[in-house]
Amino acid sequence: MVDKSHNNMTKQDDAPQLRQLYADFEAEHLMPLWTQIDDIMPVVPSPKAVPYIWKWSRLFPLAERSGELVPVGRGGERRAIGLANPGLGGKAYVSPTLWAAIQYLGPRETAPEHRHAQNAFRFVVEGEGVWTVVNGDPVRMSRGDLLLTPGWHFHGHHNDTDHPMAWIDGLDIPFSYHNDVGFFEFGSDRVTDYATPRFSRGERLWAHPGLRPLSQLQDTVSSPLGAYRWEFTDRALTEQLLLEDEGQPATVELGHAAIRYVNPTTGGDVMPTIRCEFHRLRANIVTPPRREVGSSVFQVFEGAGSVVLNRKETKLEKGDIFVVPSWVAWSLQAETQFDLFRFSDAPVIERLGFARTLVE
Amino acid sequence: MVDKSHNNMTKQDDAPQLRQLYADFEAEHLMPLWTQIDDIMPVVPSPKAVPYIWKWSRLFPLAERSGELVPVGRGGERRAIGLANPGLGGKAYVSPTLWAAIQYLGPRETAPEHRHAQNAFRFVVEGEGVWTVVNGDPVRMSRGDLLLTPGWHFHGHHNDTDHPMAWIDGLDIPFSYHNDVGFFEFGSDRVTDYATPRFSRGERLWAHPGLRPLSQLQDTVSSPLGAYRWEFTDRALTEQLLLEDEGQPATVELGHAAIRYVNPTTGGDVMPTIRCEFHRLRANIVTPPRREVGSSVFQVFEGAGSVVLNRKETKLEKGDIFVVPSWVAWSLQAETQFDLFRFSDAPVIERLGFARTLVE
Amino acid sequence: MVDKSHNNMTKQDDAPQLRQLYADFEAEHLMPLWTQIDDIMPVVPSPKAVPYIWKWSRLFPLAERSGELVPVGRGGERRAIGLANPGLGGKAYVSPTLWAAIQYLGPRETAPEHRHAQNAFRFVVEGEGVWTVVNGDPVRMSRGDLLLTPGWHFHGHHNDTDHPMAWIDGLDIPFSYHNDVGFFEFGSDRVTDYATPRFSRGERLWAHPGLRPLSQLQDTVSSPLGAYRWEFTDRALTEQLLLEDEGQPATVELGHAAIRYVNPTTGGDVMPTIRCEFHRLRANIVTPPRREVGSSVFQVFEGAGSVVLNRKETKLEKGDIFVVPSWVAWSLQAETQFDLFRFSDAPVIERLGFARTLVE
Amino acid sequence: MVDKSHNNMTKQDDAPQLRQLYADFEAEHLMPLWTQIDDIMPVVPSPKAVPYIWKWSRLFPLAERSGELVPVGRGGERRAIGLANPGLGGKAYVSPTLWAAIQYLGPRETAPEHRHAQNAFRFVVEGEGVWTVVNGDPVRMSRGDLLLTPGWHFHGHHNDTDHPMAWIDGLDIPFSYHNDVGFFEFGSDRVTDYATPRFSRGERLWAHPGLRPLSQLQDTVSSPLGAYRWEFTDRALTEQLLLEDEGQPATVELGHAAIRYVNPTTGGDVMPTIRCEFHRLRANIVTPPRREVGSSVFQVFEGAGSVVLNRKETKLEKGDIFVVPSWVAWSLQAETQFDLFRFSDAPVIERLGFARTLVE
Repeated sequence: MVDKSHNNMTKQDDAPQLRQLYADFEAEHLMPLWTQIDDIMPVVPSPKAVPYIWKWSRLFPLAERSGELVPVGRGGERRAIGLANPGLGGKAYVSPTLWAAIQYLGPRETAPEHRHAQNAFRFVVEGEGVWTVVNGDPVRMSRGDLLLTPGWHFHGHHNDTDHPMAWIDGLDIPFSYHNDVGFFEFGSDRVTDYATPRFSRGERLWAHPGLRPLSQLQDTVSSPLGAYRWEFTDRALTEQLLLEDEGQPATVELGHAAIRYVNPTTGGDVMPTIRCEFHRLRANIVTPPRREVGSSVFQVFEGAGSVVLNRKETKLEKGDIFVVPSWVAWSLQAETQFDLFRFSDAPVIERLGFARTLVE
Repeated sequence: MVDKSHNNMTKQDDAPQLRQLYADFEAEHLMPLWTQIDDIMPVVPSPKAVPYIWKWSRLFPLAERSGELVPVGRGGERRAIGLANPGLGGKAYVSPTLWAAIQYLGPRETAPEHRHAQNAFRFVVEGEGVWTVVNGDPVRMSRGDLLLTPGWHFHGHHNDTDHPMAWIDGLDIPFSYHNDVGFFEFGSDRVTDYATPRFSRGERLWAHPGLRPLSQLQDTVSSPLGAYRWEFTDRALTEQLLLEDEGQPATVELGHAAIRYVNPTTGGDVMPTIRCEFHRLRANIVTPPRREVGSSVFQVFEGAGSVVLNRKETKLEKGDIFVVPSWVAWSLQAETQFDLFRFSDAPVIERLGFARTLVE
Repeated sequence: MVDKSHNNMTKQDDAPQLRQLYADFEAEHLMPLWTQIDDIMPVVPSPKAVPYIWKWSRLFPLAERSGELVPVGRGGERRAIGLANPGLGGKAYVSPTLWAAIQYLGPRETAPEHRHAQNAFRFVVEGEGVWTVVNGDPVRMSRGDLLLTPGWHFHGHHNDTDHPMAWIDGLDIPFSYHNDVGFFEFGSDRVTDYATPRFSRGERLWAHPGLRPLSQLQDTVSSPLGAYRWEFTDRALTEQLLLEDEGQPATVELGHAAIRYVNPTTGGDVMPTIRCEFHRLRANIVTPPRREVGSSVFQVFEGAGSVVLNRKETKLEKGDIFVVPSWVAWSLQAETQFDLFRFSDAPVIERLGFARTLVE
Repeated sequence: MVDKSHNNMTKQDDAPQLRQLYADFEAEHLMPLWTQIDDIMPVVPSPKAVPYIWKWSRLFPLAERSGELVPVGRGGERRAIGLANPGLGGKAYVSPTLWAAIQYLGPRETAPEHRHAQNAFRFVVEGEGVWTVVNGDPVRMSRGDLLLTPGWHFHGHHNDTDHPMAWIDGLDIPFSYHNDVGFFEFGSDRVTDYATPRFSRGERLWAHPGLRPLSQLQDTVSSPLGAYRWEFTDRALTEQLLLEDEGQPATVELGHAAIRYVNPTTGGDVMPTIRCEFHRLRANIVTPPRREVGSSVFQVFEGAGSVVLNRKETKLEKGDIFVVPSWVAWSLQAETQFDLFRFSDAPVIERLGFARTLVE
């Protein structure tokens, strides 16, 4: 890495006049570039966000306690507890662009309907029994499923069982907040449909590989397939590893199977700001350290292993969540077969021409 | 429809000089527009191709007789019998752009490998037991399946059973021939892999709804999913009709379910020159007469009904094939649930800006 | 080049049964692939169209004689004389996809308005004084200009002077005819606007480099800029050669400047079926023999040189037109600075995935 | 506007346990959604940035004083004084995404070369005499010109005259900083080419309307045309108003001509994060109040008028700069013919699916 030292352009003997100049700048709401360029134009991305790991074993009990103490309902809207990156000054931002939270819904509870410009998804690391109703379409939530709530789609959740359920939410709240693109609207105080079908209407229309309904030829900004079932994800990854065993190109690198969840109308990312992927490593596989522009969040779905973030290794267990800020080197090490869900802001980075990757 | 009468621009009293002029044109390889504009620039498409119906009950026995008399092998390459549109002057063109043929492979036979710029597919109206090997990937062929052989992919077929099998081939041979875009190359005289797996490698990588292998992020001109299985097609159509029963938008028009086979890397047509679709009509549904620019071929897959082509109704049975030339009005009438496979040159028409549809 | 010999698959001793089979095929409008595959699936494109050169010195006098003998008007529509490729059986097709004609308009004459799905352009090798009125917008035609008449745009021409004028027309008539995509409609028997402005409204809106009217943010299938003026083309080519003199990358190959006329809303071809380019070679430059899929037509605009088509060299003079069928090797040889206009069916070939080039 | 009141979901009688829960959240770097949803998910965009106007008459003298006191050179890199939105906490951000600065270069001075991932442009409201050297190509800067420095292009400036020159810079520094996408690299301490040609090589290749060099067929992320000259902009706007006078559709609304600067390889925005436009209002035209998602900066180029921002009108003079944060209603009022340059983050907003506009 290059070392960048911006020398001060100012002449020291002009100090009083300079001080006056700077004071006059301030009075006019101006600031010179030359005093801050080192900070605002770094040689490589220097995120304030830090790599950090949240343990599921600590998250889940806190979610349970919230379930006892905090009713879910209109106003607060969701019993969601955001992961606050320690480098981001006390905001519930897991990275400068992404929000990640654990959400908890008690037995028979309903989280009321609303919609917002922010794009959202849920990923289920364990449990079942909740349906999320998206634009009136009830979508079952079960272990391993990815469920989408693209921007400006009404959605609410209800727990159809006598046991609680928790899952993670991912949104582009920080991005939307920073760039002032958010809109919000309340919907029904209940969910509009309490049916509990095994498959949502979106799946029934779209979850047929390579088949597009003739009534749905318009491409959509976000995926019309609102549920990506674990059964399919697991099978796709299993097949990649089997193909690798047969000597066929299929995995992304040796012993590393991976899929990207995509919008079937375009083959591109499921939502315009958020990429979702699932990775499976064979036991004992170590991925090479990789730096990427943009930030990512991983959750361990199954298996044992560790992550190395900026050369520091941490053991991971099921449910653990970690964030990789921009340009932080990351590597995965699998002890057993190791399954991880990943989401990131890569569509933002790529669509705006900022993508770079460095594999060490 | 407008009646267009191009008056002759020539003055009759100049006849001898005109005759000399026309002779001089001919000597210089020139032809005036004004004498032929009525033919070459019609008011609406006036195809030489005619609507025509081939009966499976007559096609299949002829294919069987070919199986007895004509060995399959290098040179002739395929035991394929092309449907020759009666309006197209004795060429085996089902339409000006499309080739359709019945192909027949006897017990234990092999059709040798070759590749060509022309795009091809097979659709199986009945039978099983043949594998087509596409770029080294053995692909099972069974009733209701659509199998792709995009341009410049090596392919050969072999029959792994003791019974013969027939299916239909669709290609863009006439388009390629007319526009001089064809290349051809021989491959192995055998197929390169006699394995008979239930699922091809392409399916194992790609036939997972909304899941894209991370190793396959480059979009492809033609679909990387070489087999579209009947099981999925049938389920997709079934769901559309069930959704319609529930009052949900899903079908293309009342009682008419339909899917388009698509390239999962783009959501668009499976190949750049050929569109493939499957249509299912409920019993007693009649579709409104429709005129479209470009030509289509339909094959009845199951059920009973009829087609009205230019106001003439014809009964159809399983396996029957009919062609709809450009701008010919067509309508389907279902007696029972009525399943039809369709292919067309619509991608050519749409990509070049010529698409129009008129529903009467 | 590969030699391909398709052996006959048929067994000679089955001749009588075979003859009966073939007769039965014919009765059912069927034709076997194996007897015709050599013709319809050639190893490389084997166009029926031949390379051919039309001399302007013979074309123009014939156009003049037409001007005396044939009135222009409704019905025949245009005094256009099509170049008939000697290989294409007496049709006025310069290639299987393209139409090229010399059009002639006498003093004060009007060619009435009409529109058609076929895409058209005019290129002016000499003269001035005619305005073509495209969707009501009068467009001046002067030496070196390219004027567009995209599909379904009304257009008529009128000669505002006391001298005749001739130019070439290029259209996709053969492509449209073969594929049955053509529609035609009469418009005014006169042109709808006899004004003779120096610049059309399309130019006034669009002919500003890199500037897009905020009122015109919708991309269009064909270019909204209907006139590409010689002044700009000449300057662009001049600059490319000057940049080359300065050691900068600018020309397409050494001593060979070239521009493609493009749609400013997309940067792509001016019309969906026709590519237009202008090429300038320095004196003594020889381009390497090149084979391309698809057909092209060139017209010499200025200078002296020759073309080598399939190893046969022919001298060319101003106005001479030659056609390069698909996969025919062509090379240009410049004696002086050598300017040529070119049009081709390349957008068809590229959009449908058939493009290949071989530089020898 | 909707009034949104998020009620507190917490039960008051659980206060001690709640306080403990919140403390435990904090210890684990967690934050509940329900206490902050009102802030982070507003009903409509509620930017911290405020509408603000900087007077050229105050900016320019401060830039001059900087010229006396602060040498330009390596380290500080540029004598650029950033406009600091009063709502953004003392950072030199004109909006959450955009940077705007006045840059000043004294007689014979050189600003050294560097490159960065951030996209940049310069717009010249007055003066001339400086050349910016972009990837080795010297680009003249004159009144009314827009000059591009897309991401990762080396660039430096030098003043070839004995008088100083000032202009405005626009960059995506805040966006890049917030999202951690920035890279920076020093280049030559001088500019690599002190030539002062009237036209850059980029212009000589690309500034020909509708003509694309055949050597440049690859589309580029940012415009290859690095200079948009005032002469063309002025002519385009003049023609739009003349066309309007003639009753033709050309202006964006009555009396309001406008162009967008575009990438000629695509017809889209000049850079992936920044849109640049130029607007001209006839005297006495008032535009309807408009709210848009995303932020914009305007600079008055010529004429007199005012802007209404959130119902507050402010008079504007030549050179004045104002910012319109997201969803702030803005309207322009022209006293004389009124010319304004505009830039915005609209490509970010549109590519990520957040665009909305409300015209009141």
